[in-house]
Amino acid sequence: MASRPTSNAYPEPVERLIDEFTKLPGIGRRSAERMAFHVLKCSEQDAMGLSRAVADVKQKVRCCSICFNLTDIDPCGICSNESRDASKVLVVEQARDLISLEQTGVYKGVYHVLTGRIDPLGGVEPGDLTIAALLQRIEKPDRNCCRVKVHEVILGLNPDMEGDTTGLYLADELTKRGVNVTRLARGLPAGSHLEYASKAVLADAIEGRQAMR
Amino acid sequence: MASRPTSNAYPEPVERLIDEFTKLPGIGRRSAERMAFHVLKCSEQDAMGLSRAVADVKQKVRCCSICFNLTDIDPCGICSNESRDASKVLVVEQARDLISLEQTGVYKGVYHVLTGRIDPLGGVEPGDLTIAALLQRIEKPDRNCCRVKVHEVILGLNPDMEGDTTGLYLADELTKRGVNVTRLARGLPAGSHLEYASKAVLADAIEGRQAMR
Repeated sequence: MASRPTSNAYPEPVERLIDEFTKLPGIGRRSAERMAFHVLKCSEQDAMGLSRAVADVKQKVRCCSICFNLTDIDPCGICSNESRDASKVLVVEQARDLISLEQTGVYKGVYHVLTGRIDPLGGVEPGDLTIAALLQRIEKPDRNCCRVKVHEVILGLNPDMEGDTTGLYLADELTKRGVNVTRLARGLPAGSHLEYASKAVLADAIEGRQAMR
Repeated sequence: MASRPTSNAYPEPVERLIDEFTKLPGIGRRSAERMAFHVLKCSEQDAMGLSRAVADVKQKVRCCSICFNLTDIDPCGICSNESRDASKVLVVEQARDLISLEQTGVYKGVYHVLTGRIDPLGGVEPGDLTIAALLQRIEKPDRNCCRVKVHEVILGLNPDMEGDTTGLYLADELTKRGVNVTRLARGLPAGSHLEYASKAVLADAIEGRQAMR
């Protein structure tokens, strides 16, 4: 963190706002000062809009009790949507991944947000995630969206070491319970150049080669 | 601005907070999302602290009626401090410049914040700044800090074209009123290397050469 200026440099409320802004990710002292000065200059209405938005997000947004997606209603709009195929559950690490997948418009099933991934070195054990709730959705269909039995679980974890660890653990637990487990395809990213692809990407692309239809 | 995701991607309060964050300077959609997720994850107390700090800064912070520095009391702590030499007024463009100068601890006089600089192309005329109030501080000592007569005005404007334009205009108005006008020294920045200094810096350094004591 940048060095603090001498005390009483700014009026106390300005100093306090700068401190609050520096707590945000990626915001250093300089950016926080610029942001605080923006708030000072903007209209009272705009400032109150920001203030209320921060408070509202904390007071109104909760986790969906079925899939742990962020929501202001429970169950969330996806879980309560009967036109979605609740027999397919796509497992993601965090709500932001769900949003990215949802934006493709390709997937019509439902989701399950783990709220993290297994990371023994970082102190994250399976019990710290929402795995027990996922297994209950499999075992007891009345705990699943629209009380539908789950036939397939698609693992949508990040393709890195912790993601793979989590995926292997889940695949093990899920297959024991007689459900089909798949994972998102790995291979060449669309729009990329073969010559610049890494060895790991090329190895995935060769091993996972797909039949031409 | 980055493209917006499809509607209802996030719950409405989250979407609204992201929108509010993107209004801040230097914050794009991605950063705003990270910041919003930080607010979602942090404690309720921390979130309310940020919310209140934004509201407070708008409701409690005003401009000092003498020097136009930001303050939560009027006149500000510098103007009302009798141990400061109110016969010297250092003119700066904005409150942030005042803070930077104040942090050196070298200057014991008072300040005047112009709240901008003359910029005819940008539509900023002398009448848009606090120049009239500055001239009144010169003409009527009871309008100055601690009712002291002003002997010297030090121009602490940015060393660029608009700063120089503003400085020339002020020097003209101030000398007419019989007050000494000086400006902050220009020359080599401390800790720099001569070989990398620009022509303008070197020219300033030669013209403004100082006697060795």
